[in-house]
Amino acid sequence: MCRWVAYSGSELLIEDLLYRPQHSLIDQSLHSQLGAETTNGDGFGLGWYGIGDTPALFHSVEPAWNDRNLRELAAHVRTPLAFAHVRASSGSPVQQTNCHPFRHERWLWMHNGVIREFATVKRDLVLAVDPSLYSKIEGSTDSEVFFYLALTLGLETDPVRAVEEAVGLIEDTGRRHGVEHPIQMTVATSNGSQVWAFRYSSEHDSRSLFHSTDVSTLRELHPEIEILQQVSDHTRVIVSEPLRDLPGAWQKVPESSYGVVHEEGHDEHREFTPRAPSHPTAVPAAI
Amino acid sequence: MCRWVAYSGSELLIEDLLYRPQHSLIDQSLHSQLGAETTNGDGFGLGWYGIGDTPALFHSVEPAWNDRNLRELAAHVRTPLAFAHVRASSGSPVQQTNCHPFRHERWLWMHNGVIREFATVKRDLVLAVDPSLYSKIEGSTDSEVFFYLALTLGLETDPVRAVEEAVGLIEDTGRRHGVEHPIQMTVATSNGSQVWAFRYSSEHDSRSLFHSTDVSTLRELHPEIEILQQVSDHTRVIVSEPLRDLPGAWQKVPESSYGVVHEEGHDEHREFTPRAPSHPTAVPAAI
Amino acid sequence: MCRWVAYSGSELLIEDLLYRPQHSLIDQSLHSQLGAETTNGDGFGLGWYGIGDTPALFHSVEPAWNDRNLRELAAHVRTPLAFAHVRASSGSPVQQTNCHPFRHERWLWMHNGVIREFATVKRDLVLAVDPSLYSKIEGSTDSEVFFYLALTLGLETDPVRAVEEAVGLIEDTGRRHGVEHPIQMTVATSNGSQVWAFRYSSEHDSRSLFHSTDVSTLRELHPEIEILQQVSDHTRVIVSEPLRDLPGAWQKVPESSYGVVHEEGHDEHREFTPRAPSHPTAVPAAI
Amino acid sequence: MCRWVAYSGSELLIEDLLYRPQHSLIDQSLHSQLGAETTNGDGFGLGWYGIGDTPALFHSVEPAWNDRNLRELAAHVRTPLAFAHVRASSGSPVQQTNCHPFRHERWLWMHNGVIREFATVKRDLVLAVDPSLYSKIEGSTDSEVFFYLALTLGLETDPVRAVEEAVGLIEDTGRRHGVEHPIQMTVATSNGSQVWAFRYSSEHDSRSLFHSTDVSTLRELHPEIEILQQVSDHTRVIVSEPLRDLPGAWQKVPESSYGVVHEEGHDEHREFTPRAPSHPTAVPAAI
Repeated sequence: MCRWVAYSGSELLIEDLLYRPQHSLIDQSLHSQLGAETTNGDGFGLGWYGIGDTPALFHSVEPAWNDRNLRELAAHVRTPLAFAHVRASSGSPVQQTNCHPFRHERWLWMHNGVIREFATVKRDLVLAVDPSLYSKIEGSTDSEVFFYLALTLGLETDPVRAVEEAVGLIEDTGRRHGVEHPIQMTVATSNGSQVWAFRYSSEHDSRSLFHSTDVSTLRELHPEIEILQQVSDHTRVIVSEPLRDLPGAWQKVPESSYGVVHEEGHDEHREFTPRAPSHPTAVPAAI
Repeated sequence: MCRWVAYSGSELLIEDLLYRPQHSLIDQSLHSQLGAETTNGDGFGLGWYGIGDTPALFHSVEPAWNDRNLRELAAHVRTPLAFAHVRASSGSPVQQTNCHPFRHERWLWMHNGVIREFATVKRDLVLAVDPSLYSKIEGSTDSEVFFYLALTLGLETDPVRAVEEAVGLIEDTGRRHGVEHPIQMTVATSNGSQVWAFRYSSEHDSRSLFHSTDVSTLRELHPEIEILQQVSDHTRVIVSEPLRDLPGAWQKVPESSYGVVHEEGHDEHREFTPRAPSHPTAVPAAI
Repeated sequence: MCRWVAYSGSELLIEDLLYRPQHSLIDQSLHSQLGAETTNGDGFGLGWYGIGDTPALFHSVEPAWNDRNLRELAAHVRTPLAFAHVRASSGSPVQQTNCHPFRHERWLWMHNGVIREFATVKRDLVLAVDPSLYSKIEGSTDSEVFFYLALTLGLETDPVRAVEEAVGLIEDTGRRHGVEHPIQMTVATSNGSQVWAFRYSSEHDSRSLFHSTDVSTLRELHPEIEILQQVSDHTRVIVSEPLRDLPGAWQKVPESSYGVVHEEGHDEHREFTPRAPSHPTAVPAAI
Repeated sequence: MCRWVAYSGSELLIEDLLYRPQHSLIDQSLHSQLGAETTNGDGFGLGWYGIGDTPALFHSVEPAWNDRNLRELAAHVRTPLAFAHVRASSGSPVQQTNCHPFRHERWLWMHNGVIREFATVKRDLVLAVDPSLYSKIEGSTDSEVFFYLALTLGLETDPVRAVEEAVGLIEDTGRRHGVEHPIQMTVATSNGSQVWAFRYSSEHDSRSLFHSTDVSTLRELHPEIEILQQVSDHTRVIVSEPLRDLPGAWQKVPESSYGVVHEEGHDEHREFTPRAPSHPTAVPAAI
């Protein structure tokens, strides 16, 4: 399993996100408290929006806690929207093409969790990916196939519906193969201006997910935290586990729900409901 | 493109194969003379038979010429049958899962060449892989898919026919997608007691391939070469390009042909003829 | 800090040492119970004696728990004497030249612990290394400098005295620089036929060290453990922390002591006493 | 040997420097035309000034031509001053700590060439490094020791004199050890506002070095080159070998000379004269 953090808001030096907090993602790579594994040392990834049409990616197979290039980058790049992810492999090889976040044009995607019995269902799921997207799959993880299913099902036009349909398809495929609880997930995805975060599992016992409290409230609660004075009211952080032990700072995302962070504020939280794909996919029924 | 060497015969220290010869594979990784590229620095692989039921693999993404672990291994492991490969990527990522040789149980496989417009034909080819083998594919190269097609088509029972059918399938699939010359290849494969080597290309202008001259003849020609006194009469080396400039030492494998090296001698050379798979594969005709 | 294991005895497949035991070194790389850190993910090293005049080395900067080349090697190499080490860096870079065991001709050396305030004392210690050995130092760790000090002080002729003098020199140098407890160590070294293991710290509160109980006693205690039937009476394992929870299997090495394992049995345990170098070293007094 | 490029001038996307030109540094990593070796595949480094007090570093041991993180960085970072370097190791290990450019506070340093018989002279040279700087040396290259000698001899206050004295010291040390031509070098160094470039060798037959022609002249010669319209008159590129075959674009730096690029223009070229250090260094005469 893995740990991740998504940041959206005022332009920030990446090290203020990744290294400065008490229980930062880098610290979680060695000492996760809420994860399925305490060590997340099987690769690291960072994606950020800034210069250029598409977001930048930095993927490394070295453990994050000792990656010098990551530390350099973090100290010299500022961004208004970043995804970072530390990986604990559930079996697929430790290689850059298996590091999150994954990217397709303007979109980033990262996942904590698992498509269960992936070796069994992989072929059916990969067949359901749009043939024009198929050749873009570079690695061998369940998480990347999940991303390409969501893209196939319309992530770029209706992200929530696309993820609901992708999960519907994964659950249906898994159950046809006798998998009791086909998926466990927290997912973040972004197009560079909004961030969507999902918390769901077939067994309704999903991995932890938190979002930061409204910044204006936080400033009142914690006038001593300097960085809160610097960031805008619309700044949000979404995390697998809290980055600091600040009373009042973190809100648990409810079971089977999703949230949307807009640049201009007005966050939404809604129920997440897997559903069958509205368009038939290429999965050959008879195989 | 790539360079490779297959060794079969008397037990040999790997460094005598990889480092000692004048124009060794390690030298070819920096200065190939007959290859499509002079530098083969995108990963290295070594497979050898010895202790245990399955052959051992060592895959590295460092250029072979500076890989210290390879040098150590080579100086401390002896084997009667080894495959070694230096890679020049034609696009797919440099990662261990893309390094040759590939392995399935007792079988090793390595390839120099390309399945042309692989991004276009990959989905169809992967669909033709037996579903029970599908989940064993770990990397993203054309060469590994080629191996799994050959396994699907019976490599373990009739290797020559399986490779002929795999090439037939690849050519047919490529041509349906408008690819003029779908495949370029030299391939070596082994089950631990025999080695098969193939030279073929759709355009009948295949990459170079050589095998060593009969050892007893070589001993007479070159009594000064010490290692020739030590190895058995049945020892053979098959190579993308000659390892030494020894007059009389290397025989060119003819265009569109294959050879078989048996432990007990009696090498064969025959014509290689791609053919349609005798059993229908899973490729859905309508996609 | 780190974890290590030294094996001497009947020829053994390396995976029987590294992967098979319940709480193997590979498991300790993720979940050390007695170490200063639970995760030892900053590089791995294996040294073994076998073919060739010098021992073989395999050094990797990937975490041991996911290193595929290590798993391959372990399954295909047999050896009567092996050292293995998982590293948790105390600051120096994660690179192959900083991985233990270190090698000089026939000798291997590995260390768990630290030379305290190494940045302060390093120059003086490096100056004390024999100038003819100086250029052999490849990495930047305290452990490798310690090895070269021991070599300078006669490791190859009187190993115990050399280590005692090296520790005396390190303690003297540290104290001149105001370091209260200059060294913390468990060390193993071998010439290919004997293994020396040391446990010491300036504060007399040393890292844990254990050796296996006499094999004939163990066989009586645990007739159910198959591997005990296969190995010779003189087989010994020395470890940072026990590899299995076998009652009676592990003996704690006492504080401030050392042991010697001979091929033909007759182990010794003696007190370890740091002492001033008997020959002046090159350390310039005035710096 | 190596290839490098130093850029100073208008803020530029790094990929416009590293990937866009015809015969870019990335191309030179595979196909150097003027270098001692055609392949420079033993590590890559990039240093750039921008956000933060010190320049950023990115060091990689993968060959530059296939490094995906480098390609990402290059497409998403803009800078007014960058150093980039591809390495062909002359023996020291391929590891991040041996990649150029090296950094000390605001200063960057990179070197193409060699301190000859470095194993022989290394100890004396390292001893001459100021003890307070000694512990900052992280790698094992001649180039990094050369940098620390220059820092010891006043690089930060009088760079030209410091490099002249460092070279004087290296030549004197080499000759005391019987080395005929102790140094071969092109060097670039910067404090973030100026760039100094040196071309020298003891044998007066130095590696190639070029600087770009005055931008206003270039614009007249090549109105078709778009990027020339975008950069300021004071923009300069200094290179081991020309990046494009543009007639009139490149000026050869004369043998035994140096140049200084100022932010505000007014470049200087002067003779380079090695000289004895003005202050005694710590080298013990008697060793």
